[in-house]
Amino acid sequence: LSFKIKAEKGQRVVEILTSYIRKTFDRSTKVLDFHHPHQLLEGIEGFNLELSDQPESLEQILVDCRDTLKYGVRTGHPRFFNQLSTGLDIVGLAGEWLTSTANTNMFTYEIAPVFVLMEQLTLKKMREIVGWPDGEGDGIFSPGGAISNMYSVMIARYKFFPEVKTKGMAAAPRLVLFTSEHSHYSIKKASAALGFGTENLILLNTDERFVLLFNLPAQIIEAKRKGYVPLFVTATAGTTVYGAFDPINEIADICEKYNMWLHVDGAWGGGLLMSRKHRHKLNGVERANSVTWNPHKMMGVPLQCSAILVRERGLLQGCNSMCAGYLFQPDKQYDVTYDTGDKAIQCGRHVDIFKFWLMWKAKVCFYLQTLITNVVPIFSYQPQHTNVCFWYIPPSLRSLPDGEERRQRLHKVAPKIKAMMMESGTTMVGYQPQGDKVNFFRMVISNPAATRSDIDFLVEEIERLGHDL
Amino acid sequence: LSFKIKAEKGQRVVEILTSYIRKTFDRSTKVLDFHHPHQLLEGIEGFNLELSDQPESLEQILVDCRDTLKYGVRTGHPRFFNQLSTGLDIVGLAGEWLTSTANTNMFTYEIAPVFVLMEQLTLKKMREIVGWPDGEGDGIFSPGGAISNMYSVMIARYKFFPEVKTKGMAAAPRLVLFTSEHSHYSIKKASAALGFGTENLILLNTDERFVLLFNLPAQIIEAKRKGYVPLFVTATAGTTVYGAFDPINEIADICEKYNMWLHVDGAWGGGLLMSRKHRHKLNGVERANSVTWNPHKMMGVPLQCSAILVRERGLLQGCNSMCAGYLFQPDKQYDVTYDTGDKAIQCGRHVDIFKFWLMWKAKVCFYLQTLITNVVPIFSYQPQHTNVCFWYIPPSLRSLPDGEERRQRLHKVAPKIKAMMMESGTTMVGYQPQGDKVNFFRMVISNPAATRSDIDFLVEEIERLGHDL
Repeated sequence: LSFKIKAEKGQRVVEILTSYIRKTFDRSTKVLDFHHPHQLLEGIEGFNLELSDQPESLEQILVDCRDTLKYGVRTGHPRFFNQLSTGLDIVGLAGEWLTSTANTNMFTYEIAPVFVLMEQLTLKKMREIVGWPDGEGDGIFSPGGAISNMYSVMIARYKFFPEVKTKGMAAAPRLVLFTSEHSHYSIKKASAALGFGTENLILLNTDERFVLLFNLPAQIIEAKRKGYVPLFVTATAGTTVYGAFDPINEIADICEKYNMWLHVDGAWGGGLLMSRKHRHKLNGVERANSVTWNPHKMMGVPLQCSAILVRERGLLQGCNSMCAGYLFQPDKQYDVTYDTGDKAIQCGRHVDIFKFWLMWKAKVCFYLQTLITNVVPIFSYQPQHTNVCFWYIPPSLRSLPDGEERRQRLHKVAPKIKAMMMESGTTMVGYQPQGDKVNFFRMVISNPAATRSDIDFLVEEIERLGHDL
Repeated sequence: LSFKIKAEKGQRVVEILTSYIRKTFDRSTKVLDFHHPHQLLEGIEGFNLELSDQPESLEQILVDCRDTLKYGVRTGHPRFFNQLSTGLDIVGLAGEWLTSTANTNMFTYEIAPVFVLMEQLTLKKMREIVGWPDGEGDGIFSPGGAISNMYSVMIARYKFFPEVKTKGMAAAPRLVLFTSEHSHYSIKKASAALGFGTENLILLNTDERFVLLFNLPAQIIEAKRKGYVPLFVTATAGTTVYGAFDPINEIADICEKYNMWLHVDGAWGGGLLMSRKHRHKLNGVERANSVTWNPHKMMGVPLQCSAILVRERGLLQGCNSMCAGYLFQPDKQYDVTYDTGDKAIQCGRHVDIFKFWLMWKAKVCFYLQTLITNVVPIFSYQPQHTNVCFWYIPPSLRSLPDGEERRQRLHKVAPKIKAMMMESGTTMVGYQPQGDKVNFFRMVISNPAATRSDIDFLVEEIERLGHDL
């Protein structure tokens, strides 16, 4: 009986979710129904977030599920342009439901035989696409691009100064890392966490296309002059705000000359490797020592799905393995080289591979490739990727001369429009200042459900909301 | 039409999953259908793991889903005793399906308003249960206990040597960390990754109950004599293999005396805090500076769900924040203290909270508490937790005198039985050597579906498989 009741409730959960999915693809549905934190905390129409000591009925649990979705944000809505990860892929979603039902852990072949093999095959395929001979090398799926980037710094350090693993940073000279000022902030997080210190991460200037300028050799020479050891350079393939691609080949030349580790952060732009038409933007990627590539961004895989790929086999294992006897028994009956968990900085590791593998099986050719091939040129006026950055200048500012007053007023326009946009719930787009540029919008396309008319809608909505500012 | 086809296929995926769940709770179903890696890679009955360049039909995708489950391991089966995370909770699973459907990211209130608030309320509740006044403090859900433990080391370093964030480990004296030899290997991983070096993690001896011996003060004094700075002690609440609880109060006294950070790793044993009857095993936990607690272990929440709780507010933020302008705009229209993403070492962060919140809502009182209260005493012969460690001694060894030959032969017994057990697929239990102990079984109960008869079944199965060794 209990199972029947549960099965019936389970069916109703599925109905709630199916109805949510259907509405998400319906443009007459709002992207969000905004409420301030204090409003949600006080409780709206009986939706009570507080945890009490009294259990709720299963009926109430269903209401909680419905309300949780109601007051959330529909990241799969065709008019959600707010982040790099958007869209709701149905095959990927089915994969994720299966993954949670299987509820297992990637650390050993023993309890995740199929998923471990899927991960190995998929990583190999990704390395082939990067261009490493026969897909040789190594890699692992990690909980997001920030952790993948952190891995790259860790293994670079291990490659050149393996004794840091046992003796700590005291065993190495003062190491410096280089990246572009527009690279993702996770490189900075990694340099703090791993004990390098953010001051030892040199942020390089960029040119008018927002890509790394060639003051890199000068900076390397300057660091050496001070007695520091230049260790690592990140080339970003698709910067977060502008979608710019650093010139990998030129950076690779420099890294080879100075014997430094080259990491390509393709968290956002890595997806272009799947496109014959656009992969040239990552020319030289095969010369990288490591590559971050997040299929949960441009490739539309549900969150989370991020890979760190490494050209040299054995470094991940060497860097991280601790040989825990209770998990990685050497005397198992199967080939224990498939117990890949000791490569990770995690112990238990979520199964992120299945949804991606399933999507690949379902549609790699006509979907993943053509998606990217088709989506990117929507922005033919955008030179590199699907980020479009722009200001909306309300009529009241149009006649103002350039200068501090105009800057200060323009700086407030995007936040005001965004606030009204969230209240109206019709669409979502991000904004930020950058360097000497005041707040501007950054629109991102990675959702295959978004069409040209949705983009037009966003532009019109900004005009409507901002016209009288 | 396309949506209808997808909805129909979606319904069939749900049927596959429902049938899988039903069978998982049926004891006549095998726990696994074991195949070696090369067998699965060659393909079994048309199940082909390889990624081709040709898309598959949706019909084939459904077959792939069925086969993936068929050749996996049923971690929710009542006779799966192999890991600390077992069981398949239906409410938690519904929560996880909803989470993947919402497909959002924890970094900002902007795109995860409900989930961010749920996380805050739940963390506060957990801190109240730890015993911090009014649930004050801080915390975050992380991708597993290893990362939670890594956070604890990071924030301890930040508390005492904040300049390491900018200047690196060179700005600090030589720091040493202390933990028990039976603590989880993630403390060692963290000391390697964060730049301390594993040699600067001192592994302390344990007594006959496998808990930390009081040579800690002597070790601290010895480290100071060498000019090192003792920074951090882990007290383990529920060790991985033996389920032992270090005496937190005694360790807290020492930490206070020497001004060191006390971390309690309750990844496994933290769940006992929910039980009036068993929480005394963590007496003193309220004196910790940080606590790891994994609801995905003893509390049966689907993977992944791990929290790091911190007594002092602001340290997580101070340690990790980089203030990325494109995410954490200070001029948003809502209270941006709810944008908690900059506390994390991740950027994007999976929503791990909802399933836990939903389970709590559904049954915290009569389930989570009673589960733990009831499950633990099944092992009345086990003094501390639900780990039971034992040897099976086959008849052929019973008359052998103690000595090297007996040790060597006994060492091979558990792996042989485990291999046969996996081939027969009837049940699963782990084994390992530890210190001078040859391979022994470690049975773990955390699955509420497991009964005394399932435990008897395991014992009988070991006897059946191992009798003639």
